[in-house]
Order: sequence, then C-alpha cells, then structure tokens
Amino acid sequence: MSEPMFERVALIGIGLIGSSLARVMQRERLAGSIVACARRAETLAAVQRLAIADDTTHDPAEAADGADLVVVCTPIGAYAAVGEAIAPRLRNGVIVSDVGSVKQTVVRDLGPHIPDGAHFVPAHPVAGTEHSGPEAGFAELFEGRWCILTPPPGTDPEAVKKVGALWKRAGMTLETMTPAHHDHVLAITSHLPHLVAFSIVGTAADLEQDLRQEVIKFAASGFRDFTRIAASDPTMWRDIFLNNRHALLDVCGRLLEDISRLQRAIRWGEGEEIESLIEASREIRRKLIDANQA
Amino acid sequence: MSEPMFERVALIGIGLIGSSLARVMQRERLAGSIVACARRAETLAAVQRLAIADDTTHDPAEAADGADLVVVCTPIGAYAAVGEAIAPRLRNGVIVSDVGSVKQTVVRDLGPHIPDGAHFVPAHPVAGTEHSGPEAGFAELFEGRWCILTPPPGTDPEAVKKVGALWKRAGMTLETMTPAHHDHVLAITSHLPHLVAFSIVGTAADLEQDLRQEVIKFAASGFRDFTRIAASDPTMWRDIFLNNRHALLDVCGRLLEDISRLQRAIRWGEGEEIESLIEASREIRRKLIDANQA
Repeated sequence: MSEPMFERVALIGIGLIGSSLARVMQRERLAGSIVACARRAETLAAVQRLAIADDTTHDPAEAADGADLVVVCTPIGAYAAVGEAIAPRLRNGVIVSDVGSVKQTVVRDLGPHIPDGAHFVPAHPVAGTEHSGPEAGFAELFEGRWCILTPPPGTDPEAVKKVGALWKRAGMTLETMTPAHHDHVLAITSHLPHLVAFSIVGTAADLEQDLRQEVIKFAASGFRDFTRIAASDPTMWRDIFLNNRHALLDVCGRLLEDISRLQRAIRWGEGEEIESLIEASREIRRKLIDANQA
Repeated sequence: MSEPMFERVALIGIGLIGSSLARVMQRERLAGSIVACARRAETLAAVQRLAIADDTTHDPAEAADGADLVVVCTPIGAYAAVGEAIAPRLRNGVIVSDVGSVKQTVVRDLGPHIPDGAHFVPAHPVAGTEHSGPEAGFAELFEGRWCILTPPPGTDPEAVKKVGALWKRAGMTLETMTPAHHDHVLAITSHLPHLVAFSIVGTAADLEQDLRQEVIKFAASGFRDFTRIAASDPTMWRDIFLNNRHALLDVCGRLLEDISRLQRAIRWGEGEEIESLIEASREIRRKLIDANQA
C-alpha cells in the first residue's frame, strides 16, 4: 500500500466543508490520521459518532501540534484567533491552508502568524449546500466543482502542488488567482446573490401575517429559489460580508442602480426598455448553458 | 364512453402554458376538439407537428367561433386586442378564461368585451418553467401546483366550477381570491423575484469582458440560481411588470430599503445587525419546509 499524502491532518473547524473534506480523506486514504477541532462539545460528539476523525479536541493548538497539514475551516472571523493559537505549535515544513470564501482578509489575518519554515497555501473549494454542521457533509460535495488557490508570491511550489493534489482527489478542478481578483469574482457570483436572497426573503418576512402565509403557500412561483440560498449559515455569511466589504459594496451599488433603472422603466411604462433589459440577462444564461454551467 | 367536458376548446396563444393545457386535455379527453390560435406561422407549424390540436388558425375570431370554452394564453399585453377580436363570435353560454399572471388588468382589458350570456372566469395556473413555446410544454407541468381563480362578483357558479374542474384534472389545487389580492401576493412571490433576477444577471452582463467570463465559470456558487428564472420569456415578463405596476413597485421599494439596510450594516461593520437580518430570513425558509413548499 502506498504512503498516505499526509501523516497527520488537523481540521480546525469541522462543519459542512471540513467534515466533507474529512470524508474525502478517509475514502481516498490521504491521511495517516485526522484530528478534528471544534469549539462546541456537541460538534465534537457528532464527529465521534460519525467516525470522520481519529482524534477530537477543543484546542486548536493541540490539534495543530505535530500535524503536517492544517486546514482552517472555521468562519473567517475566527481566523486571527486561530492563527495566534496554532502559531507556536506549527512544526517545520507544515502546510497551513484554509477553505474560506474571502481570500484577502485570510492573507491578512492568518498570514502574519505563519512562521518561517511553514507553508501558507490559502484555498477556496467553491462548493456548498444551504446546510451546515458535520452531519451535513458528504464526500461527493466537491465533485466537478472549482477549487481556487491563492498562494502568496514566493510560496514553495511543492506545497501549492500538494494542496492542489488534495482537492483534485476530491474531484475538483484547480484555478490559481490573486486574493484580490478572487474576492472580486466571488463578490458577484456568490456574495451578492446571497445578500439579495437574504434581503428579499427578509422583505417577505416583514409582511403582514396573512400575506406572509400566502407567500409561503405560493412560493414555488419564483420566491422559493431565493429561500434556498437564504437558508445558509448566518455566522459564516456575516463574516463573508464583513470581510469582503469593499468588493461586495461595489457590486451591490451597481445592482441597486440596475434595479432602480428597471423600476423606473416599469413606473413610466417603458416597454421596450424593459424588454431589452430582460434580453440582456437571457444572453448570460445562454452563455452559461454553452459553458455547461447551467 | 362519457361525454368530454367541453365540445370545442379554443386556445388563443399556444406557448408553454397553452400547449401544456392542450396536452392535459388530450390525455384526459376533456375536449371534443381543440383549436389552437397563434400569430406566428412557425408556432402553428410546431403545433401541427406536435399534434396537440385538431385545428390551427391565425385568427382569434375564427378560433372562438363555436367554442364553448375559450382560454386566452397570450402575453397579457395582447388581451384587449384578443377580447375585441373574439367578442362578436362568442356564442351564448361560452366560458372565457385565461392563464395570465396578473388579474386586475385581465378583468380591465378582457372583461368589457365579454357579452351577456358568456361567462368570464379568469384563472392563473401558478406553474411554469424558464422555457417558452409549444415545444416546451408537457402535461405534467401543473401537477401538485396551485390554480388561482378570480371570478368577478356575480359570475355563474357553474361556470367557475367547470373551469376549476378542468384545472383539477391537470393535477392542480384550487384557490379563489380577488384580483387585487392575487396581484399583491404574486408581486412578492413571483414578480419581484423575477425583477431581481433579471437585474442581478444584467449587472453581471455589464462587467468587463474578462470578469464576465469568470462569472460564468464560477456561477455555481449562487449566481446560477438567479439565471434560471432570468431566462424566462421577455415579452411575457414585460407585460407582467407593466400590468402589475403598482403592487410590484410597492414591494420593490420595500426590497430596496431592505438591501440598503443590509448594505449599510456591512459598510459600518455591524455584525450583530447582519446576523439578525440573516436569521429572520432563515425563519421563512423553515416555514416553507414545514409547509412542504421547500
């Protein structure tokens, strides 16, 4: 039997993504052992029940101790504290990676804690569901999806390759970009749609009681598509919004202008304007179908 | 063999909904004969190829002649012209119905043309896909969905019952409400989500070329859910927006306030505010799941 890719893997945070990664590593026999770290006792109890890690601990430092791969899978807001906790226990040659949906602040918050001799390879496996927690994970979550790597300049290419190889085994296709570019692209493809979904569902939640009942009854006519992504984890999304503030506020401002333009055309009965705005958006849909992303 | 429910059915407009209804009537043997009316020759050629009607015509008056059920299935903007064309040919006792997504303007545009002795029963089968045209239709489209009837006060209850029975045979559950209430509920469950989807996809379409390519590449992270409903028919949606203007502008104004509130919380780093806004929208999702609408 061939050697596993890593001797000891520490997963700091073991929710939907962390637990799915643990399942991939078990299926593919990529780790000699896996230690899962979580703050809450019930999360660790679930991990033990699911048998997706060899060891569990509340202490990030203990988890990182002796690991040759540390993957931070907590909400982004916890990264600075995690970095500070694990720094003294990182062994020489260890690879520190993560799975966060914003990359500039990851480099800012986690980067300074990475000692010389450790390799820092931030990654974003672009996959998920609206469910959260270790029970929600599954090994196939990543299949056919993209994983974006944003290694800082000068990172050891071997370490980058190793992290890439891990995500390839999960079924992902790799892409490398700068953290700033990543955050710009994800602001429009992921963060803005979530912001809008939370808002529109919130608008419905504020309706009078009887109307709200009917919104639920007739949700299938369009509204339902928005509620699915609006069911995502509040802490995770709070952190994403706060940490990708600039790119998100930029695209949100553009969207508000575009909604206002359509709103104005509706108010003034400008049929041709409305039709051409709708046509433009169909064009993008066609391109998605052409790119097999629909 | 029992008598069909209707002797001769005229479908004025034969796109996704009209052609699906034709298929239901064929499967259930509800009509002695079906005549399909469309403006475009290629639509009628498709209807003939699909064999979903017994006769085809370009002329709404000819289609309505002798029918005991006329169902208007065109975009709402054509209703006034259709009403004017068919009025002189409507026979005594005929039921005139429709499938439009806005009901107040249907009553306004079609109602005045319905002669004494004819029954007017506006209906909205709340079902659809993002595809359009007669090829896109299928008999199962309506199964398990709601059909909303908005008969004017004083309409013959037998006629209302007959239209209801038709949609029940298509697998739908019936609901009756006033046109104004219908338009208010649909503004939030269907028209606003479509308006937002068109806008957000339009915002992406306006990005610089290279960024737009990447939006398509990484669409699965949330954006894709919006493009599906944004692929719907432009003429149909132009007419819905224009004809449900007041209710739609009302809910759109509320949404813009709600987006602005979340935007402001992000700008000022108000984490608790963001989290509580997200929590409120999750609550609605839970209610949808409880109501088996998720």
